Amino acid sequence: MPNRTAFFVSDGTGITAETFARAILTQFEISPKMVRLPFVDNVDKAHQALRQINHAAHVDGKRPLVFTTVVNMDVMDVLRRDCEGMLIDMFGTFIAPLEHELGMKSNHRVGRFSDVTKSREYHDRIEAINFTLEHDDGQTNENLEKSDVILVGVSRSGKTPTSLYLALQFGLKASNYPLIPEDFERRQLPPAVLPHKKKLFGLTIDPKRLSEIRHERRPNSRYASLENCQYEVREAEALMRRAGIRILSTTHKSIEEIATIIRQDLEAKTAR
Amino acid sequence: MPNRTAFFVSDGTGITAETFARAILTQFEISPKMVRLPFVDNVDKAHQALRQINHAAHVDGKRPLVFTTVVNMDVMDVLRRDCEGMLIDMFGTFIAPLEHELGMKSNHRVGRFSDVTKSREYHDRIEAINFTLEHDDGQTNENLEKSDVILVGVSRSGKTPTSLYLALQFGLKASNYPLIPEDFERRQLPPAVLPHKKKLFGLTIDPKRLSEIRHERRPNSRYASLENCQYEVREAEALMRRAGIRILSTTHKSIEEIATIIRQDLEAKTAR
Repeated sequence: MPNRTAFFVSDGTGITAETFARAILTQFEISPKMVRLPFVDNVDKAHQALRQINHAAHVDGKRPLVFTTVVNMDVMDVLRRDCEGMLIDMFGTFIAPLEHELGMKSNHRVGRFSDVTKSREYHDRIEAINFTLEHDDGQTNENLEKSDVILVGVSRSGKTPTSLYLALQFGLKASNYPLIPEDFERRQLPPAVLPHKKKLFGLTIDPKRLSEIRHERRPNSRYASLENCQYEVREAEALMRRAGIRILSTTHKSIEEIATIIRQDLEAKTAR
Repeated sequence: MPNRTAFFVSDGTGITAETFARAILTQFEISPKMVRLPFVDNVDKAHQALRQINHAAHVDGKRPLVFTTVVNMDVMDVLRRDCEGMLIDMFGTFIAPLEHELGMKSNHRVGRFSDVTKSREYHDRIEAINFTLEHDDGQTNENLEKSDVILVGVSRSGKTPTSLYLALQFGLKASNYPLIPEDFERRQLPPAVLPHKKKLFGLTIDPKRLSEIRHERRPNSRYASLENCQYEVREAEALMRRAGIRILSTTHKSIEEIATIIRQDLEAKTAR
């Protein structure tokens, strides 16, 4: 079967268009060729984009799927006029009914990122990334009380990627601490984190999966052995249960899912 | 004016729903209260969500905006039946026309993240995060040739957040090196990065903005002084120009925009 092409066309970064289009495309058993066309923000670029789309239509012998979040009306006019693809206008489709509902016109402002560098939200997000990096892997206890979240778990249980996602996507300041033999012997979580139980989450993972992950880093080490992984996970979970903190497993859950659960939990605690 | 509520309802993390809804909402001069309802993946949770939505409708005296990416049809049936909000069905709207275009039924698979932990793509993304973290701030030259991208720039020009975004969002392995007085005196980029010019990008920033950022970290230091920032930026840009690498300014561009430009540039080089 000849392949079809999917285009993601935006007058901004196109990240929204691509995220959304990929989510929709997973609903179908197809693997289209994907072409990103970001920053299509004037008529000239619109014509260029159109040529690429129509070229693909001829080569594929099938209408390309054109997912667009373009707000600029001149650009949309060009795309609409001679497009030989199937135009999926992800913004326009909802803008008109929303204008009606809200009783106001939309402003056709381009992209959610324009001038964003001056916004408080952006500034806080960058701060969260810096904070999270400085507080990765128990590097420092300084300003620990300023954390929004503190994660504990054995080495390679997913603490660092989850922390960074919380910071980058949600703007949360995340600290994380590895659980090590010293903690297991002391039979309690690292002393520095104990006063912050409301923000504490334990990450755990199936020992078999952990052993696989560790073998990729240090093949045939004691560190990676199934026996050692079973020991560490068992002891770590015992510490978490004793402290009464929520335990989340990264075995089958992505960092997006774990991060979302954590944020939901924090919001519920704040609302109470 | 009484506030309106916007709900982001999903049977997955709801990250797609929220990203998309926020992008659409920036088109209007409104600041609705935002409520996230992730993991609404069965009829019971759908009824709970419905109660929250209809409660908001009564409290606000205005129809809530309900952005949904729910794929589960039983859940959607509940939401559709008695919803007192304006239902913006971001998936359903496009699924039917796409089924027609593609000549196949959609699979109604929940969320783009289900079982994702087993996918190659997910594995590579986690690897990219680990790689990027290990290669932050010139920590190591080891495996530098495995980088997809190498960033250079003065301290606080945005290298680390951009690198992490490239890894987390795009799965690209990013290394970054600070440019320091030693480099300025030697009048060339760090020797380790020179053999990798195709992957090299220079980040720069307006000295005034840089001085502000640095003052937040180390108030009234020589490091943060406008004079020193002007000197560093001038010298850094001279090195970049001499090496003939692309220079990107983070003064008015977000990390998303910078990262998108870099990816586009890399893709164009690969296509050539």
